[in-house]
Amino acid sequence: MIVTRVTADGVRRRPDQLIVEEPMTIQLDGVTVSTTMRTPGNDYELAAGFCFTEGLLGGARITSVRYCAAGSALATSYNVVTVETGGRAPVPAPRLATTSSSCGWCGSDQIDDLLARLAPLPPSEPIDHEVAARVPAAVLDGQGLFGATGAVHAAAVFDREGRVLLTREDVGRHNAVDKVVGALLLEQALPATGRGLFVSGRASVEMVQKAWAAGFGTLVSVSAPTSLAVHAARTASMTLVGFVRDAGYNVYAP
Amino acid sequence: MIVTRVTADGVRRRPDQLIVEEPMTIQLDGVTVSTTMRTPGNDYELAAGFCFTEGLLGGARITSVRYCAAGSALATSYNVVTVETGGRAPVPAPRLATTSSSCGWCGSDQIDDLLARLAPLPPSEPIDHEVAARVPAAVLDGQGLFGATGAVHAAAVFDREGRVLLTREDVGRHNAVDKVVGALLLEQALPATGRGLFVSGRASVEMVQKAWAAGFGTLVSVSAPTSLAVHAARTASMTLVGFVRDAGYNVYAP
Repeated sequence: MIVTRVTADGVRRRPDQLIVEEPMTIQLDGVTVSTTMRTPGNDYELAAGFCFTEGLLGGARITSVRYCAAGSALATSYNVVTVETGGRAPVPAPRLATTSSSCGWCGSDQIDDLLARLAPLPPSEPIDHEVAARVPAAVLDGQGLFGATGAVHAAAVFDREGRVLLTREDVGRHNAVDKVVGALLLEQALPATGRGLFVSGRASVEMVQKAWAAGFGTLVSVSAPTSLAVHAARTASMTLVGFVRDAGYNVYAP
Repeated sequence: MIVTRVTADGVRRRPDQLIVEEPMTIQLDGVTVSTTMRTPGNDYELAAGFCFTEGLLGGARITSVRYCAAGSALATSYNVVTVETGGRAPVPAPRLATTSSSCGWCGSDQIDDLLARLAPLPPSEPIDHEVAARVPAAVLDGQGLFGATGAVHAAAVFDREGRVLLTREDVGRHNAVDKVVGALLLEQALPATGRGLFVSGRASVEMVQKAWAAGFGTLVSVSAPTSLAVHAARTASMTLVGFVRDAGYNVYAP
């Protein structure tokens, strides 16, 4: 795409590589469970990872992941992905109730309920804080897409020595994590016991929840976490390292 | 909250101010339309702005915004906000269908349909690109919460001279924009003809959609926009300035 760049040296028209975002609908056993704006690519991982980290599989094994062909034999939509478990996953509940409802719940209680439903993290040797704090620089140095566009988020898996094993990028922070978890799931490499998860940007409670669901004992982010993220990480006994800057870092949990 | 800060100078335990996130449920005429993780504060603006920018009001006037008291007279939930139009807003459609569905739509078509439903922007004198490009520094310099925690997003309204008129912050980018738009709505200051909207972080298509719905003719962000955001801004004839760094900026639209 041609854009206009203005600097002290003047005005130039030049091509610019923008990050692509397109909506993708995720179906589980034929039922639509989400429509997300995502960066195309690794779509099967995204769909599988979303269903897994959101707890929609209920322990059921994925039997297939495929693009969903539209009615016409000529038109296959690459924006609809169906995850199949042969009907063994629980029927998804509506995620946003639109029936008239009374105010039966308080949000904080709901979060604690959510956390209480997650299984305890499998015990593993904690990853050294120093090792975790070196991971953001390692990931971001190697992040080609981010370098080109400046508008994409990354998630990555690292090991006890700080080696980056897997990186995924997406316009959405949640999607990048779902792609990483989906990749591990499709490789039958979950739970991610003894591994660490890196997320660019902020560690929010959903990030901790997704890391926890996948069995990561360590979560590291560049930015500061939210209060609820720290609460969730401490509840999980998950190591949470953040605010990695100025040649230092913070340890928020456990 | 006490966290551990590690630097070359050693390890210190110190208090750290984390950004608070809590879920808030938004109801429109008693029907739940969204649950969002948000930074508490300006909750009425957030609820009103969400209903407006998502097109849920259908032109209906808001008659009241209030916290929804739970069953007990003692327990009022500050995590549920009800927007009332006296039933004049259209009944909200389910936002995430969970009924079994065939693959009847392609995402890109859906986006164009969405954009086609938005009214043309009211004509106004464009804001000078140079003026818009100076706004991010002005907002971020004055952003107290961001300075303290490093984990929050901001949205702001500015005028033709680059003066920042209104700033709102939130852990969620969308929420910060909804709070700004909601504040203008509750002040009966919409459409925001002749004003510009600043968003921290990435300009995605939803940001352009929300700015468009509120009548902003100019959108400026620190980061690069996505491809679909540029498409939407060009469709709207909205000025889109981004990638404000290294003493320069890009003009992506119109």
